[in-house]
Amino acid sequence: MPCQVRTDLALEARESAEEASGDLRGVSVDEYDLEESDIHVTKVVIESANGATALGKPVGTYITLEAPAMTEPDEDYHKEISEEIARQLWALLPDMTKEQSILVVGLGNRDVTADSLGPRVTDNLLITRQVMKEFGAAAYDREKMHLVSAVVPGVMAATGMETAEIIRGVTSQTKPDAVVVIDALAARSTRRLNRTIQITNTGIHPGSGVGNHRSAITAQSIDVPTVIAIGIPTVVDAQTIVNDAIGRWHGGEQTGDVETPELIPELANFYVTGKDVDEIVKRLSYTISEGLNRTFERFSAEA
Amino acid sequence: MPCQVRTDLALEARESAEEASGDLRGVSVDEYDLEESDIHVTKVVIESANGATALGKPVGTYITLEAPAMTEPDEDYHKEISEEIARQLWALLPDMTKEQSILVVGLGNRDVTADSLGPRVTDNLLITRQVMKEFGAAAYDREKMHLVSAVVPGVMAATGMETAEIIRGVTSQTKPDAVVVIDALAARSTRRLNRTIQITNTGIHPGSGVGNHRSAITAQSIDVPTVIAIGIPTVVDAQTIVNDAIGRWHGGEQTGDVETPELIPELANFYVTGKDVDEIVKRLSYTISEGLNRTFERFSAEA
Amino acid sequence: MPCQVRTDLALEARESAEEASGDLRGVSVDEYDLEESDIHVTKVVIESANGATALGKPVGTYITLEAPAMTEPDEDYHKEISEEIARQLWALLPDMTKEQSILVVGLGNRDVTADSLGPRVTDNLLITRQVMKEFGAAAYDREKMHLVSAVVPGVMAATGMETAEIIRGVTSQTKPDAVVVIDALAARSTRRLNRTIQITNTGIHPGSGVGNHRSAITAQSIDVPTVIAIGIPTVVDAQTIVNDAIGRWHGGEQTGDVETPELIPELANFYVTGKDVDEIVKRLSYTISEGLNRTFERFSAEA
Amino acid sequence: MPCQVRTDLALEARESAEEASGDLRGVSVDEYDLEESDIHVTKVVIESANGATALGKPVGTYITLEAPAMTEPDEDYHKEISEEIARQLWALLPDMTKEQSILVVGLGNRDVTADSLGPRVTDNLLITRQVMKEFGAAAYDREKMHLVSAVVPGVMAATGMETAEIIRGVTSQTKPDAVVVIDALAARSTRRLNRTIQITNTGIHPGSGVGNHRSAITAQSIDVPTVIAIGIPTVVDAQTIVNDAIGRWHGGEQTGDVETPELIPELANFYVTGKDVDEIVKRLSYTISEGLNRTFERFSAEA
Repeated sequence: MPCQVRTDLALEARESAEEASGDLRGVSVDEYDLEESDIHVTKVVIESANGATALGKPVGTYITLEAPAMTEPDEDYHKEISEEIARQLWALLPDMTKEQSILVVGLGNRDVTADSLGPRVTDNLLITRQVMKEFGAAAYDREKMHLVSAVVPGVMAATGMETAEIIRGVTSQTKPDAVVVIDALAARSTRRLNRTIQITNTGIHPGSGVGNHRSAITAQSIDVPTVIAIGIPTVVDAQTIVNDAIGRWHGGEQTGDVETPELIPELANFYVTGKDVDEIVKRLSYTISEGLNRTFERFSAEA
Repeated sequence: MPCQVRTDLALEARESAEEASGDLRGVSVDEYDLEESDIHVTKVVIESANGATALGKPVGTYITLEAPAMTEPDEDYHKEISEEIARQLWALLPDMTKEQSILVVGLGNRDVTADSLGPRVTDNLLITRQVMKEFGAAAYDREKMHLVSAVVPGVMAATGMETAEIIRGVTSQTKPDAVVVIDALAARSTRRLNRTIQITNTGIHPGSGVGNHRSAITAQSIDVPTVIAIGIPTVVDAQTIVNDAIGRWHGGEQTGDVETPELIPELANFYVTGKDVDEIVKRLSYTISEGLNRTFERFSAEA
Repeated sequence: MPCQVRTDLALEARESAEEASGDLRGVSVDEYDLEESDIHVTKVVIESANGATALGKPVGTYITLEAPAMTEPDEDYHKEISEEIARQLWALLPDMTKEQSILVVGLGNRDVTADSLGPRVTDNLLITRQVMKEFGAAAYDREKMHLVSAVVPGVMAATGMETAEIIRGVTSQTKPDAVVVIDALAARSTRRLNRTIQITNTGIHPGSGVGNHRSAITAQSIDVPTVIAIGIPTVVDAQTIVNDAIGRWHGGEQTGDVETPELIPELANFYVTGKDVDEIVKRLSYTISEGLNRTFERFSAEA
Repeated sequence: MPCQVRTDLALEARESAEEASGDLRGVSVDEYDLEESDIHVTKVVIESANGATALGKPVGTYITLEAPAMTEPDEDYHKEISEEIARQLWALLPDMTKEQSILVVGLGNRDVTADSLGPRVTDNLLITRQVMKEFGAAAYDREKMHLVSAVVPGVMAATGMETAEIIRGVTSQTKPDAVVVIDALAARSTRRLNRTIQITNTGIHPGSGVGNHRSAITAQSIDVPTVIAIGIPTVVDAQTIVNDAIGRWHGGEQTGDVETPELIPELANFYVTGKDVDEIVKRLSYTISEGLNRTFERFSAEA
């Protein structure tokens, strides 16, 4: 039985699927802790259609960084997280020892705190495409930079357009080698909120994100060879919280098979978020920006 | 038995108390619909210590405007709401046919969408105190204005000070005749979110508001004769949602006597809010601003 | 001799050209005051290459609304301006008695007050394209709406892309019938700042706007049949202020033929703006939004 | 003759005074470059009434850090500037080896880019007063912290109150040992814009700052023993630019004795600012925040 509860995290989808059926053929999992830091890395690879059905997610690689202290204002710790983001991106992006053109897309709504992760990440990015195009690599006296551009497409209520339409338009003009999409995610459990970063090479799919995009943002849909999505869960669906509570109330663990969607139908338009979401999103958006800046400036260092 | 569930709305506290015990001595209620509009007015007066204990709210007057279409972008409708706010304030404020000095306080956190109602209301206020003090009433060629000032004190995490300390400081210097405090509230039920405006002459009490103030903002605590609070519920405590769901699951209505606080203790730091909270807060803050502007400019019109 | 001083206003370019040479063949001018209001309308039509050279602006129609009280917070007055904007747009846009798809582009930088006019106008637009596409005209129970969409492309320093690239990308996907571009302009004289609205069917040209776009946004460059630009001057180039002052110091009027560009070369990176630019831009962006909303909802009313 | 041209920088006032009369009795000046960095420090001490009259500034100490690369995004360089700010503040503040309570005041208008320095500095401050008051020094496991609080009073047009009234109110309640006021300043020359930090123990005086406060913020006016002001010039008065230009046009240097105030009287309401003021203010506000955070956390380190 495919997982019933909405989550954007492959990690949680795997847990639910395992509880529900135990059939995890076509899903491989690798876990490890980073030495000398408190970061737990899980790599879920969905290898087949069976795995995709079991987890309700497309075939691809899902890397999760979990760090319990991610919500704390510890600069050194966030630097370690940024470095790990860069390491993981370096592996998923096209050959970074050669000059690449990369478009970063900040999804979400700047005016809704829990949904502002994407736009905020772009605020701190080092944008280089316009300089590289005008002056070439000579513009930067240190090592060579990649061509980094960024766009904040806005939400459909404000634009009247599908986010995918806008991105496809931009990529059709600027032909980047890769797109990195940043979005706030929905988790299944409050325990993972703001403590987890998911990096995947499958892009964004309908129903993902705090804002619930209707159309996919994938290599195919926007016609770009590589589409990476980076997300942090900042909300839980209100219905999910209730499901969990009723599951526990009935003596069980979070089983995922309690069906209560008819109980409070109006909950569909609500979500649960933390009281300190503003501080968290401000800090984590900076951590991701630094991870991206580090990724894009590492040109000759690894060449 | 006093009401168990956190709500800033006297209306909801009365419903809970009625269900729980039926003892509502010391609480009077008056309800009516405004002619030619869809606004339902409820006036709860807590008249005695017994009533205050039953509802878990201080003695005073609590006026609630309920308007199902309050979330819709209908300008004429919002104008009617603004007019009703002005009528109610006119009655609660000191004699508005004489010149009064009134300080509006925008509580909450501008960076958290659901908590930004107070700061946003002050953005659209017509501020007149500085002009009246410099040029006197001659400054305004139409009717005479009251002396309106405003302050956005910020939240304790950003200031290091209790909000009440800052307000008391400001009132000690400027000696207003009345203070009007605006704040985003927590409701018990999602059904009342963004559809209800509460106006009370009891000020703000610890535990009120989205941000949970620690000290009271009342006539006594800030040493001003009249303190009016205007609030709109924009969030529901996450624990409350779960309580309601379990109550319904057990076949009952929202009874308030199901005790589940141990189920998901981490929910204490989370709240539930609507997906369109940004649009709602933007619109309702404007409606309240207009209500206040209308109140303060009605000087000679009613004299 | 073509005009030397930078201005985005055809009105000012015409004045300079007249002073400089008097040769205004190929330029027609029509002026009138609106009845019962204080709005002065000037329509400059550049009809030929000679006119274009004389004024340093492309062939096309430039309508200017001047209203000395535009900086005042008078709601009724702003309503009149909005109505006049709608009347003028109605004439320049494609046949508005038939359903049209229109993309509004908010140029400029939201983080720079004097350059935030475009993004702010989009904040108050009634966006309908997504609703019309999903539900059709039945979505609106009043009169039929046009399909309105909007985009805020951001500035090159933040995106790494030419604004024109982004817009061309969006229009290539959504194929609007017309594009309306909003931008903050540079005037030649502080006397016209914030008191003038220019509407033109020639689009945006390199060097226009507060932010100095490098590539044109025209019917040709973004491949859309109709491109209207609406602008309000919010800044004056610092060098222009100095030129004017020296011109006056020498006993003359603003002659435009005093050449002083070498005096303070570093002024090239500075501009002059009003101390109350935040209030002004907030108010005028709302006035333009209302003008646009009025234009797009007038569907069957005129049919 | 006292200096005629408006500048908030004692450095510039001294230059003007020297040119005008050469009488600089009562003013001592000490200049030096920081080793291994590109920061030039000037310490102007106005020691007597004669000096105060000559420079048009009150008696006190004015320290200026000039750093030509201050506008560049070089993190290491900004760290050096932050460290120098901390060193200078350490000397001007009350005995920092003992626990002190310090209120930081962010003057200015967050909605006007060039005037947003003060509010932005408070955004990145580590606020500790509320934690220290609740848990005491045990709250911080590293070294002991001072009690840091912050307030953003807003501008008179938005509050109806003098900034000094609000601050005096806050200090009357919280009794800090010292107040540090942050404000955007007006310089005389565009050459010093965004490249200069002034630190003074004389507070803020009428006419200072981008927003032109009407009443002073000094030890006396707000009844706090120590009032330090930190400012960065982000604007030049439009009239000043013109004066300079005419001065140069006449073959001279910036003499300050050309009188042209009647030429363009409307310039009084305008100022000159840089096109990249948003990036600059964002970066420099962070540099000052870091300087302050460093100052306040150095408790036991120096004890």
